[in-house]
Amino acid sequence: MTNRPYTPLLDRVSCPADMKQFSDTELARLAEEVRAETISAVSETGGHLGAGLGVVELTVALHAVFDTPRDRLIWDVSHQCYPHKILTGRRDRIRTLRQKGGLSGFCKRSESDYDPFGAGHSSTSISAALGFAAARDLGSAPEANVGDAIAVIGDGAMSAGMAFEAMNHAGHLDKRLIVILNDNEMSIAPPVGALSSYLNRLYTGAPFQEFKAIAKGAVSYLPQAFQDGAKRAKDLIKTLTIGGTLFQELGFSYVGPIDGHDMDQLLAVMRTVKARATGPMLIHVITEKGKGYAPAENAADRCHGVSKFDIETGEQKKTPANAPSYTKVFAQSLIAEAKDDKKVVAVTAAMPDGTGLNLFATQFPERCFDVGIAEQHAVTFSAGLAAGGQKPFCAIYSTFLQRGYDQIVHDVAIQKLPVRFAIDRAGLVGADGATHAGAFDVSFLANLPGFVVMAAADEAELVHMVATAVAYEDGPCSFRFPRGEGVGVDLPARGVPLEIGKGRVIAEGARVALLNFGARLKDVREAATALSAKGIAPTIADARFAKPLDEDLILRLARDHEALITIEEGAVGGFGSHVAHLLAEAGVFDTGLKYRSMVLPDVFLDHSSPSDMYATAGLNAINIETRVMEVLGAAKEARAASA
Amino acid sequence: MTNRPYTPLLDRVSCPADMKQFSDTELARLAEEVRAETISAVSETGGHLGAGLGVVELTVALHAVFDTPRDRLIWDVSHQCYPHKILTGRRDRIRTLRQKGGLSGFCKRSESDYDPFGAGHSSTSISAALGFAAARDLGSAPEANVGDAIAVIGDGAMSAGMAFEAMNHAGHLDKRLIVILNDNEMSIAPPVGALSSYLNRLYTGAPFQEFKAIAKGAVSYLPQAFQDGAKRAKDLIKTLTIGGTLFQELGFSYVGPIDGHDMDQLLAVMRTVKARATGPMLIHVITEKGKGYAPAENAADRCHGVSKFDIETGEQKKTPANAPSYTKVFAQSLIAEAKDDKKVVAVTAAMPDGTGLNLFATQFPERCFDVGIAEQHAVTFSAGLAAGGQKPFCAIYSTFLQRGYDQIVHDVAIQKLPVRFAIDRAGLVGADGATHAGAFDVSFLANLPGFVVMAAADEAELVHMVATAVAYEDGPCSFRFPRGEGVGVDLPARGVPLEIGKGRVIAEGARVALLNFGARLKDVREAATALSAKGIAPTIADARFAKPLDEDLILRLARDHEALITIEEGAVGGFGSHVAHLLAEAGVFDTGLKYRSMVLPDVFLDHSSPSDMYATAGLNAINIETRVMEVLGAAKEARAASA
Repeated sequence: MTNRPYTPLLDRVSCPADMKQFSDTELARLAEEVRAETISAVSETGGHLGAGLGVVELTVALHAVFDTPRDRLIWDVSHQCYPHKILTGRRDRIRTLRQKGGLSGFCKRSESDYDPFGAGHSSTSISAALGFAAARDLGSAPEANVGDAIAVIGDGAMSAGMAFEAMNHAGHLDKRLIVILNDNEMSIAPPVGALSSYLNRLYTGAPFQEFKAIAKGAVSYLPQAFQDGAKRAKDLIKTLTIGGTLFQELGFSYVGPIDGHDMDQLLAVMRTVKARATGPMLIHVITEKGKGYAPAENAADRCHGVSKFDIETGEQKKTPANAPSYTKVFAQSLIAEAKDDKKVVAVTAAMPDGTGLNLFATQFPERCFDVGIAEQHAVTFSAGLAAGGQKPFCAIYSTFLQRGYDQIVHDVAIQKLPVRFAIDRAGLVGADGATHAGAFDVSFLANLPGFVVMAAADEAELVHMVATAVAYEDGPCSFRFPRGEGVGVDLPARGVPLEIGKGRVIAEGARVALLNFGARLKDVREAATALSAKGIAPTIADARFAKPLDEDLILRLARDHEALITIEEGAVGGFGSHVAHLLAEAGVFDTGLKYRSMVLPDVFLDHSSPSDMYATAGLNAINIETRVMEVLGAAKEARAASA
Repeated sequence: MTNRPYTPLLDRVSCPADMKQFSDTELARLAEEVRAETISAVSETGGHLGAGLGVVELTVALHAVFDTPRDRLIWDVSHQCYPHKILTGRRDRIRTLRQKGGLSGFCKRSESDYDPFGAGHSSTSISAALGFAAARDLGSAPEANVGDAIAVIGDGAMSAGMAFEAMNHAGHLDKRLIVILNDNEMSIAPPVGALSSYLNRLYTGAPFQEFKAIAKGAVSYLPQAFQDGAKRAKDLIKTLTIGGTLFQELGFSYVGPIDGHDMDQLLAVMRTVKARATGPMLIHVITEKGKGYAPAENAADRCHGVSKFDIETGEQKKTPANAPSYTKVFAQSLIAEAKDDKKVVAVTAAMPDGTGLNLFATQFPERCFDVGIAEQHAVTFSAGLAAGGQKPFCAIYSTFLQRGYDQIVHDVAIQKLPVRFAIDRAGLVGADGATHAGAFDVSFLANLPGFVVMAAADEAELVHMVATAVAYEDGPCSFRFPRGEGVGVDLPARGVPLEIGKGRVIAEGARVALLNFGARLKDVREAATALSAKGIAPTIADARFAKPLDEDLILRLARDHEALITIEEGAVGGFGSHVAHLLAEAGVFDTGLKYRSMVLPDVFLDHSSPSDMYATAGLNAINIETRVMEVLGAAKEARAASA
C-alpha cells in the first residue's frame, strides 16, 4: 500500500458526476492522478498499459464534458479503458484487473452501466455508436434513454474495413454522432497502410500551436455561439476544421488535429462539439501511447501489454519459460522452411509480434506482408498470392480469423487454393477472456469441403505441421496451436511432412480409447497415467487431423474398445462432431459404443488463468480421468468390489 | 436459331488474341455484336443481364488492350462476366449458362484460364488482384507467369470494408495494380452511403466531353510519351486526372471519369495506363447498367436478374408460383409485427428487394436501414440498435452472413444482445451455385453460447418464428428459411410465439423416427408416406430449434425407436451434430441406437436446379426413404421374406 500514489482529487471521484465540480485546472491535475493510479495498478496486475496512458486526458475530458452513462461512450478494442474504469466506480477493484473474478481488461456491458458496448476486437465502435444514435432518434425506446453516442477509435483500428463501412453509413444517415480518432501512430505494432500515411500528412500539415490558439479562441466565444444559433455554430465548427478532406468527403465534419494531452484544448473542443454538433463529426486527437511514464515512452511497443513491473525502473517480472512458446516455434519452423523454398511467404493482419512473423520479416522482409487490421483482406490477398504461385502462410489468431470467415469459404475453400492458415491462440487464452478465446475455428473450418484441418498436440508436432503445410499443395489447410509455452518436448531439427489424414497411436491400452485433437494431449497423458495406476490403462491416440479424419484409426479404436472419448479445446461442432458423424454413418452406434466428446462448455468463459479456465471447462487431466471412470462405470465397479 | 444475331466480327473471335487484329472502329462494332449475343443468350437461359450489358465496351477494351490470360482480369462479384465469357472461348456454351452441367453464371477458376479468380460475393477483387501483383513482383514463381493485375469493381461493391482494406494496403505497397471502378450507380438496388455521394460529385463535376477531348489527345501523343520515358508519361497520367482526391489520399493515381460506352475513350485510357502505370491506379468508368437494351434501360432494377424473356418486348417468362415465396412471407409477417411493436426495426446490407425489406421500408421508412454492402457493419449496427432498446431484425442471406461472423460472435453473442437474424436462402439455392449456397449457418451459429437457432419447416412456421423472434428478448436468435416459394400450407393471420427449445411431433409411428430441422420437411413427409405404404410408418418430428435442443423430445424419440435419423439442409457440424452430442452425453449410444444424420455432402455443389442439387446431395424424399430402408435392414428383411 505504500506504493500507492497521492490522489487527493481522484479520491473525491466515485463516479463521473463528481468531476463536474472541478475547474479545468483541477481536471488537468485529476488526469495526472489517474495516470499515476493506472501505472500503480498495472504494476501490480500486469495488463495493457501503454494504450491507457495515452488516453488519460481524453478520458477525463470526455467524462467531464459529456453525461455518461446516458451519453454512450464506446471505447474501440477497449484495452485502453483502465483510466475509464478508475473514473467510473471501479477504482476499488482496479487492482483485480484480468484476475480471476476481477475486473475485465476490456469494457464489458455486464460489468458497468458505463460500459455501453464491450469490445476486445477492434474497429466495432463506430458501428455500435451509430446503432445507439439511430436507436435514440427513433424515439420508440425512451426507457433506453440514449444521449450522445461517442466512439473512440485508434488510427490502427480505422484501417479495418468495418470502420469504413460504418463511416460510409454514418455519412449517409447524417445523424449526430461523435467519432474520436485517437491517433497515436501505433496499434500494437506501428500501423501500415495508406490511411496511416494520410493521417500523418494531416497533422504534420497543421501544427498544434496554431490549432491550439483557435481552439482556445473557440471557448471564449462559445456563449455567443449559443445565442446566435445554428449558423454561427456551424461557422465555429468550420473554424476548427483544418484539412481532413477524406473524412469530409465521407460526410463527416472534421475537427483537428488536437493535442490529446492538452486538457485546455480537449475541453474546449469537446464542449463546442457537445453544444453544437449536428451530423457526424470526427475529432482527430493526437496522443502518445505510454505518455507520462518514461519506461513506456521509451519502449518500442510503448508497453502495449506488460507483466507486473517495478514502477521505478519499469522492469517486468516475467516468470522464466520452461520451453519456447508455440509462437516462436512456429516462426522458427517457417523460417527454416522458407530458406529452402522461396515461394513461402507470410501474411499478418497487424500482429507481426504476436504471430512471431516479426522474426520472419527480419529474415525475409520482401516475403512478409503486414496488411494492417484487415483480416478479410489478409485472407483474400493470401488467396491471390496462392493463385499467383506463391505458398502463403496466413497467420491469424483463432478469434480474429472469424473476421475473415466468408473469405475463407468463398475465396479459399471453394477455389481450393492452397492458403496455409497458421492459427495461434487456439483454445482458451487466459486473461484476455471470452473475446479472445479460440473456441470456434475447428467447427467453422472442418465443415468446409476440401479443407485440411490440423491441430498440434505439442511444439514438435507444430514443427511437422508447418512442414506439412509447405508440402501440401492440393488445397487449403490450417494448423492450430495454443497460446503460451510448449510442453518441453525435444524439437526436431527440421519438420517432416505428415501423411495427410493420418493420426498416431501413442499408447496401446484396453477398454477405453482417448482420442486427442490438439494441445490437451499433456492432460490426456496425465489422466492416462493416473488411470493406469487404478488398473485402467487407456489407449491414447492423437488424431492430428480433424479433416480428413483418419477413418481407419477411429473405426479400429471404436471396434477394439468399450469406450471412445474425444478430447479437444474447441466448441461442439468441431472434431468430436466429425468423429460422431463418421461413427454414426459407419453404423458403429447401432450395436453400442460408449462414445463421449469432451469439448469446451456451452458458455463464454470469463478471464482467468488458462489452467483455471480449463478446470472450469472440465478439460483438465482430472476431468478426463473422472470422465473415463464414469463412462466405464468404474467408480461403481470399484465401490461394488469394495462392498 | 433464327433468333441469333448477325455477328460477323464476333464469329472471328475464338479467344481474345483474335481481337488484336481489329481496328478501333471494328472493336466498337464488336462490342455491339457482343451485346446482341449476350441479350440473345440470356433470353434463352435467364440470368444476370443488366450488369453484363453495362460492361460490354469495357470488356472488349480490356481484352483488346491487355494480354489475358497472362494479365489477370478479375471481375468483382462476376455476374457481369457473360460478355467476358463470350470473348474467352466459351461462346459455344453461353446458352448453357446457369444450367446443370453448363457454364457458371460467375467467373470460375475451374472453368477457364481466363477466370483467374472466381467470385459470387462482392468486393474481393482488389485483394485478389493485389495478391497477384505481389506474387508477380516476388518473382519466385515464374511458372505462374503473372502480368498485370486488373480488378473491375462496381461502385456498390466499393462500399464494403474489404475493398477499403485492399485499397489501403495497395496504396501502402505501391505496386503496379489497376483498379477499374465501374460506376453505374447501381449495385442490385441503388447504392447507399457517403462514398456513393462522393462518386456522384466526382463525375457531375467533370463532364465527359472535356475529358473525352483530353483522352483523345492522349492517344495522339502516346508514341512520343513512349520515347520521352517515365517523366513525360507521368505528366500524361496527371493530365488525365481530374479530381479523385479520396483515392489519391489512399495512394492511388486517379483517372477519370470516363464514359464507359465510348470505345475511343476506353481504348485510349487503357493503352496509356498499360504503357505507363507504375503504382496503383484507379480508373473511374461511368457505365449504365442495362445499356443498349431498351427493356433493361427502362426497368427499375435494370434487369439485374431475369428469367428467360422475349427479346422484342423484354417480357419475362415466369412460371406462376403456387405459393408465396418465403421472402414475402417473412416481410409480411415482420410488417404485421411492426405495426404492433414500434421497436421492431430492420437492417439490410444492400438487398432490400432480395430480403423483402423493400416492402417493410414502404410501410416504415424510418425503421428500415439499408447499410450498403457491409455485412460486418450491419451486424454490429444491429447490436447497437439492440443495446439502444430497439428490436432489430438483421436480414442477411445465409451465405453473406458469413461475412459478419466475427461481429455475430463478438458483438452479439458474447454480449447476449437480442439481435434477430432473418436468414434467407438457407440451404441450396440453385442456379447461383456454390458461392451462394446457405450451407454453413447452423454450424457457425449453433456453437455460440446463448444463441437461439431456429429453422422454418414451412412458410406457416416462418410466420410463427418471426413472432417468436419479436417476443424473445433474452439474447440473440436466428431463423433460417429457404429460397423460393413455400409449400402451400395455410398461413396464420398472425404468428404465435413458439416455446423456446420445443419441437413438435407431426406423426407418431414406430421403429424409426425422422427428426427434421428446416424445409426438408416436405420430403420427409413424402418419404414417410412411401414408407408407410411398405408397412413402415415412421414417427415424424420437427425440431424447430437446433439450439436449445428439445432434449426431452429427442431422448424420448431415441428411447422409443430402433432408429433415429436427423434431416437438415446444412453441412455437418450443425443440427445433427448437436443431436449426436446430446445422445452421446446422455449415454444413449452405450446400448445401441441406429442413429444417422443426413446433411449436405462434403463437396461444393455446382449450380443446377435446387431439386437436382438436393438429389445430388442425397436429401430428397427418395433418399430419405432409401436411408430408412437401409438403416432398418428392411431391404434385406423384405428380400428375406420374399425368398
